[in-house]
Amino acid sequence: MAVVGAGDATGHDLQVAEDLGRELAGRGAVVVCGGLGGVMEAVCRGAREGGGHTIGILPGDDRLHANPHVDVAVATGLGEARNLLVVRTADAVVAVGGEYGTLSEIAFALRLGKPVVGISTWELAKGGRPVDAIVRFTTAAEAATAALAAISRQAADTTVD
Amino acid sequence: MAVVGAGDATGHDLQVAEDLGRELAGRGAVVVCGGLGGVMEAVCRGAREGGGHTIGILPGDDRLHANPHVDVAVATGLGEARNLLVVRTADAVVAVGGEYGTLSEIAFALRLGKPVVGISTWELAKGGRPVDAIVRFTTAAEAATAALAAISRQAADTTVD
Amino acid sequence: MAVVGAGDATGHDLQVAEDLGRELAGRGAVVVCGGLGGVMEAVCRGAREGGGHTIGILPGDDRLHANPHVDVAVATGLGEARNLLVVRTADAVVAVGGEYGTLSEIAFALRLGKPVVGISTWELAKGGRPVDAIVRFTTAAEAATAALAAISRQAADTTVD
Amino acid sequence: MAVVGAGDATGHDLQVAEDLGRELAGRGAVVVCGGLGGVMEAVCRGAREGGGHTIGILPGDDRLHANPHVDVAVATGLGEARNLLVVRTADAVVAVGGEYGTLSEIAFALRLGKPVVGISTWELAKGGRPVDAIVRFTTAAEAATAALAAISRQAADTTVD
Repeated sequence: MAVVGAGDATGHDLQVAEDLGRELAGRGAVVVCGGLGGVMEAVCRGAREGGGHTIGILPGDDRLHANPHVDVAVATGLGEARNLLVVRTADAVVAVGGEYGTLSEIAFALRLGKPVVGISTWELAKGGRPVDAIVRFTTAAEAATAALAAISRQAADTTVD
Repeated sequence: MAVVGAGDATGHDLQVAEDLGRELAGRGAVVVCGGLGGVMEAVCRGAREGGGHTIGILPGDDRLHANPHVDVAVATGLGEARNLLVVRTADAVVAVGGEYGTLSEIAFALRLGKPVVGISTWELAKGGRPVDAIVRFTTAAEAATAALAAISRQAADTTVD
Repeated sequence: MAVVGAGDATGHDLQVAEDLGRELAGRGAVVVCGGLGGVMEAVCRGAREGGGHTIGILPGDDRLHANPHVDVAVATGLGEARNLLVVRTADAVVAVGGEYGTLSEIAFALRLGKPVVGISTWELAKGGRPVDAIVRFTTAAEAATAALAAISRQAADTTVD
Repeated sequence: MAVVGAGDATGHDLQVAEDLGRELAGRGAVVVCGGLGGVMEAVCRGAREGGGHTIGILPGDDRLHANPHVDVAVATGLGEARNLLVVRTADAVVAVGGEYGTLSEIAFALRLGKPVVGISTWELAKGGRPVDAIVRFTTAAEAATAALAAISRQAADTTVD
């Protein structure tokens, strides 16, 4: 499960992200994120507290820049293009708050047909009409449950090659 | 100037994109795009009709997949990650209509602090409040003028290293 | 530790790679590789037999294409550009046999100043004179020991930022 | 035609690169390179003197870092991964001298089945036997002729999709 959100986040978003990490770990999901601070660090801390595992896909070329709760740090050296790798490496995405980097990750996930669950994140519209592509919740527990259920549904619909 | 939009676009968007290519070429701007069909092809056709030059940054590894109005085709083999390169290679972005790939390009441009001008494209909000990061117009001529003016303003504000 | 080698490898190279995986795991190293078959699969199988952990950085966009001994599969969708990520994500590289993809990984590792250990792999020269940038061994145990020692030496020489 | 070589090159290599640019331009080829200094700058200068066009595919995110003889600068922000894009964007590669970055470009070109012509560049061997994958010349004129002939031969052998 990818969890995306800003490196410079509000206290509310950090608390939600940490709860989300714990909820996902409790349900057996591995957390994938961008590996740096803010929401990325909070979700990793929560996941580790919950006994789970964390993957950080970094923009830079030094694994030591990963936050301390990342188990497996991948140094891409690709800059923001690593956002796409975070999304590709997961079956669904949960967005918590977020700035433009998060918006790019939401866009890539929707482009690739992966479920996107959001908490206090971007709202999209075209021609004045909402595009309801993001399934919204207010609590980490609901978001974790919904995101994992969406993956299960998608898996059931897919013939694996 | 990057022009981004869907490969599978409406007739209106295609007409706008072609006009936009002509307007940009007439003002001396080089057009950068994703190099494939739809809005990408229309803007290149317009730019060439207007005597301008076009760059296509392709997702695949075969330059022959570029549309016939691309002057310089770059084969990245990076898939959707090439969206970021389209944005990086331009000083501003004009979005015409667009699906999720276009949204990722808008997001990257805003992330990098590049001006984004839009015609019938995505609308963004957070917490129910619009995020007015995209400057909107309805005609190609207005959009071209505004995007080039935004680049000039930004250049004036920047000390080049 | 990155282990690189061909997807279509000789029986000798496959045996060496499996031994290497076991030796690295026994010394506590995590194995990073390209995640597919041949040497990549053999080193992962060995590492898992030795109780170790494995990371596969895939060229495609589907984690299910990873070999069955990969613990953490990263789907990059970047094609051969993922070779650079394999190298960036490790502190040293061991090359076993290998074709041109392996040569690109050796080149990137040397470019980044990371130690490269080789078993039956590429030999480099310029102007008729060997370039002895690859430290060569014939057994997996020697290669594992030397590669880990090279990392320790490098760490001792480096002030971490 | 991609021309690859070191940013920090010998006077001989710089002269060869400049001659090569002029020879390629005289034969109607567009020069693709990494866009920075050394061999990259010399080949672009020669190509422009010969009336040709040049594309620079940069590792960084600022087009202003291209050398002054680049017509079209693509800012990838991908670091060394841009080496693969230089190779993908051309039908053949000429290597002039070169360090490890150049070796990675040679490796990618051979991996992708693109012809590689070399002047004073890397020599490859396996198991003590030379791997003669690089066609070698000592003058720019010979190298330009051979590289363009190799592309023509390859095109004749290929059914374009």
